[in-house]
Amino acid sequence: MKIIAFDRKDGPGLGIVEGAEIIDLSAVDAAAPRELGGVLRGPGVASLAAIASRAGAGHRVPLAGVKHRMPVETPGKIICLGLNYLEHVAEGSYKPQDYPTLFMRCMTSLVPHATPLERPLASIQFDYEAELVAIIGKTARHLTKDNALDCVAGYSCFNDGSIREYQRHTVQWTMGKNFDRSGSFGPLFVSADELPPGASGLSIECRLNGQSVQKDNTKNMSFNVLDTLLYVTKGITLEPGDLLVMGTPSGVGHGRKPQLWMKAGDTVEVEIEKVGLLSNAIVDEKA
Amino acid sequence: MKIIAFDRKDGPGLGIVEGAEIIDLSAVDAAAPRELGGVLRGPGVASLAAIASRAGAGHRVPLAGVKHRMPVETPGKIICLGLNYLEHVAEGSYKPQDYPTLFMRCMTSLVPHATPLERPLASIQFDYEAELVAIIGKTARHLTKDNALDCVAGYSCFNDGSIREYQRHTVQWTMGKNFDRSGSFGPLFVSADELPPGASGLSIECRLNGQSVQKDNTKNMSFNVLDTLLYVTKGITLEPGDLLVMGTPSGVGHGRKPQLWMKAGDTVEVEIEKVGLLSNAIVDEKA
Repeated sequence: MKIIAFDRKDGPGLGIVEGAEIIDLSAVDAAAPRELGGVLRGPGVASLAAIASRAGAGHRVPLAGVKHRMPVETPGKIICLGLNYLEHVAEGSYKPQDYPTLFMRCMTSLVPHATPLERPLASIQFDYEAELVAIIGKTARHLTKDNALDCVAGYSCFNDGSIREYQRHTVQWTMGKNFDRSGSFGPLFVSADELPPGASGLSIECRLNGQSVQKDNTKNMSFNVLDTLLYVTKGITLEPGDLLVMGTPSGVGHGRKPQLWMKAGDTVEVEIEKVGLLSNAIVDEKA
Repeated sequence: MKIIAFDRKDGPGLGIVEGAEIIDLSAVDAAAPRELGGVLRGPGVASLAAIASRAGAGHRVPLAGVKHRMPVETPGKIICLGLNYLEHVAEGSYKPQDYPTLFMRCMTSLVPHATPLERPLASIQFDYEAELVAIIGKTARHLTKDNALDCVAGYSCFNDGSIREYQRHTVQWTMGKNFDRSGSFGPLFVSADELPPGASGLSIECRLNGQSVQKDNTKNMSFNVLDTLLYVTKGITLEPGDLLVMGTPSGVGHGRKPQLWMKAGDTVEVEIEKVGLLSNAIVDEKA
């Protein structure tokens, strides 16, 4: 199942994507949920399929042209991995790590598919990072190899946009990873049952103005989704709606000679096989 | 004004602390707000004073014995500073930093005043960190020296409890800073007008089982509240209810010889002059 969050005339809504159309769940049932985080914490995504099953012809709208919202708008936490593809570790002059390298992002740093990313006034060093994101569907602590992947409800694409200058101001990356509207998340929630276990073995690519700048496969993560779930839940309870952002392949602008930064007028795309295409224009922050 | 969040028979509630008593706002007005984050995002704390002004004698309850909740339960983000008192920088074998060193915590890592902190199964290296926390009351970006402190609604105490072994697994501290129930926040929200500007010049102390283990003054931060607001809001929009956790003085258990870790049966206290006393027992995570 592919779920879209989008703007209806009366506010946010959820839909089920079928080909080039959306079943608009709020049109089928005015009481349908309107935000996926609440669905994951509550009745679960199967409840949306049940609403969709009652759809008539008048409840479908074309996918093209709708204004996307982020697949989940109320994550309790957004845990991101760094240094998680070996070639990317090397280009950043780091050593391979013995454990998943974690930092967090906040919601003010993110925009949906097809909403512009913002290059800040503070720095021109605005870099792209194509990433897979796992969306948690069950409360989880002390997971085991046998049950870990059961807590992932679905997947989406993520651009972990980074202000490199600020990322390296200190020994912690948080500032450079959390500039307003510097990252993106979407376009859709794709349920885990539509993908290989752990969303492994999928091509992942970033394109800047149509040119491929990162290209790899999710099987080449140092710590895959299962490994990461085992590690994180040794200490941290994951809750429905939480996001696990799985790190980026090599090819980032910071590691290039000359370095390559995103600027106003550019378009950046993150595409993951079977998961989707996340596209954002770049604009300058207004003075 | 000092505001307490606490458990009433019918759920959460807010109160105004007056000496040894609380004005129970939900007793004064059944429609009173019950969580401070929503108040900060909405009508503001002055609205609580207006409700309290209608209190009668039957609306007061003794402060002693109430079950505390966290002053804010819905922060959009919790931004924490590391390496922010010079003596603490040295004991961790770091160099003084040119910018505030930032990381984030999530709500699953925190408990209120008088609720036990939890030493995890995963590691015995459970350390205390006494900190001041600034609670944001206004949406803020690109603050200036003249207006920065206006966005702080109030202050509280924080124990940035850390699992040192996991904090140093990789180059990012996030894992060791976010174990479930490893940190605490409270006991009260103290409005900014009751304290010196930026809550500077206040003694801050941590005691473990009554013994002083950290003792310093908030004037000795490398980056004070104002400096930190200026830096953070170059890139990040602060929103009402967000927390800015201001770093810890020297004396942490990790820097001692021999090292000192919190264990079941201990009691840890964070006390900040005019801000409050945050006390938590330590228990072991259940196997």
